[in-house]
Amino acid sequence: MNSAPTVAIVGVTGAVGAEFIATLDRRNFPVGRLTALASARSAGKTLSFRGQEVTIEALGEDSFAGVDIALFSAGGEISRRFAPLAVKAGAVVVDNSSAFRMKDDVPLVVPEINAHRIREHRGIIANPNCAAITALVPLWPIHQANRIRRVIISTYQAASGAGAAAMEELSLSTRAYLEGRPFQQKVLPHPYAFNLFSHNTAIDPATGYNDEETKVIKETRKIFEDPEIGVGVTCVRVPVLRAHSEAITFTCERPIGEAEVRELLRTAPGVRLVDDRAKNHFPMPIEASGQDDVLVGRIRPDLSDPSGHSVAMFVAADQLLKGAALNAVQIAEYLLPGRAA
Amino acid sequence: MNSAPTVAIVGVTGAVGAEFIATLDRRNFPVGRLTALASARSAGKTLSFRGQEVTIEALGEDSFAGVDIALFSAGGEISRRFAPLAVKAGAVVVDNSSAFRMKDDVPLVVPEINAHRIREHRGIIANPNCAAITALVPLWPIHQANRIRRVIISTYQAASGAGAAAMEELSLSTRAYLEGRPFQQKVLPHPYAFNLFSHNTAIDPATGYNDEETKVIKETRKIFEDPEIGVGVTCVRVPVLRAHSEAITFTCERPIGEAEVRELLRTAPGVRLVDDRAKNHFPMPIEASGQDDVLVGRIRPDLSDPSGHSVAMFVAADQLLKGAALNAVQIAEYLLPGRAA
Repeated sequence: MNSAPTVAIVGVTGAVGAEFIATLDRRNFPVGRLTALASARSAGKTLSFRGQEVTIEALGEDSFAGVDIALFSAGGEISRRFAPLAVKAGAVVVDNSSAFRMKDDVPLVVPEINAHRIREHRGIIANPNCAAITALVPLWPIHQANRIRRVIISTYQAASGAGAAAMEELSLSTRAYLEGRPFQQKVLPHPYAFNLFSHNTAIDPATGYNDEETKVIKETRKIFEDPEIGVGVTCVRVPVLRAHSEAITFTCERPIGEAEVRELLRTAPGVRLVDDRAKNHFPMPIEASGQDDVLVGRIRPDLSDPSGHSVAMFVAADQLLKGAALNAVQIAEYLLPGRAA
Repeated sequence: MNSAPTVAIVGVTGAVGAEFIATLDRRNFPVGRLTALASARSAGKTLSFRGQEVTIEALGEDSFAGVDIALFSAGGEISRRFAPLAVKAGAVVVDNSSAFRMKDDVPLVVPEINAHRIREHRGIIANPNCAAITALVPLWPIHQANRIRRVIISTYQAASGAGAAAMEELSLSTRAYLEGRPFQQKVLPHPYAFNLFSHNTAIDPATGYNDEETKVIKETRKIFEDPEIGVGVTCVRVPVLRAHSEAITFTCERPIGEAEVRELLRTAPGVRLVDDRAKNHFPMPIEASGQDDVLVGRIRPDLSDPSGHSVAMFVAADQLLKGAALNAVQIAEYLLPGRAA
């Protein structure tokens, strides 16, 4: 890998695309040249990166000549079509879509958990689902200390997970509601102003779980390399603009107390404890927004399990950063010379 | 009891107070005379009930002369002070606060579950916590068919649970956010516009659970008359104006399938199934608002429990109706002549 690689961003005009740009800059990622790719309708527009004007190009089959690292976040269809072309052109792809995540020869990586898998890539490294990342970063140090056998997750997912257009729709529909005007939803299937709804992905009729939930279940098993971990999950879209929250209850192989969990998380990479009972100050999406860490609080025994094996907690993380762009850039950092995991 | 009793409403200007008025009317409750009570600052204002103008009176020690039924929803402090005076004056109190709920000689009633306890009252009947009612109405028929040993609840609670002022604060702060203006929260402790936070009640340092969660745990055991049922609960305030939602995972004594749960709930009183997987249509607060029933959907096996004893579901109910005013009026109906449970 070039020490100042050419980096392509596919989907640069999206919500995650904007965070790719900001995150590469903020983390001093050594970008030799930036190739900004989007759909034809954005071609010719410009964006600014490190004081330079970069012209957005229409994504095409020839877009990847000379590209060393390609960060994809333009949906599964684009990834399925163009990621193999990028690999063929010599790039390493870090893909934020779900297109390749469950493929055996594609590492699915949260660097705090399994950075060592990065080196096994055959051109594509997959970035996990954002709701999965948010849960798994704090669960991993616990799982290593005292194997987690069962975890139940209820998500409170922000509009950002459905992209910039969904964030705009939440703002616009809420404004319309407050002003007593009708509003026609276009991006999301249900009214969003002061409302919430089960995650807007299709339900698998065989299981009753929606795609988002199925991703969390399967990706947890792949990332933890534990095919037996029991995962129950309910994914819900709440009227929050940015950052996902999750109520998590987990059961370990051996008894575990809240003090042990707190101690494990105090030094865990990518985790920040926000657990002030006196001030009633716990993880909130508004405070997780723009932050790299997964905020963790409400750590307490799960009173429904008298065996003492279960603990509950509440977490929040910026879906666009640790749930997407930051995690991908962290993976890309391991591709730089001298940074192999 | 008089067949057209004098009914007093304590806290008539609050969010629940308004629903008491509407619910009594809508259910053709035979009100002989309505006594509308509130704080001194609302005294002299008027409200309309069945075409009659009713003047709001300041709550005082002598407010209950001649009152047959007193519906209280003005907070625990008011209930503790005035409910005993109402009882002394000959009224039966249905109290929406938490002041008396856990007292041994006070029935804690959800009519669909334990209406038979009403007749044991000694002047006061307690209305349960709204998050508890929302979970327990659909859990009860399951519990009767196949004893529930453990339930894990994550709540998505609306502003209405904190009263009319909190609903107003959610609207005003959201409007300020959208217009880029600063906003000073007064009712709730954290920014509420497009944000969520752990429930704003105090945390018990001994358990790590907040008051709302502790109520759900204790009230479940009292209402179900099952001191051993394990209840784990995380209460979260979401930026929804009205109606609470809850993700619920429960484990039964014997194996239980989703078909059995769906069949039990199909005919359960106070429950309406909203579980259309093809249309991705499930319980939403916007559709639960103004409805009497607890909406139930997302019924599916809990995949984290391979034993087949666990099922997950998602529910929504109008916190001001079934969670408060409706449940209280339903209780009051059992006090009418010829209506004893």
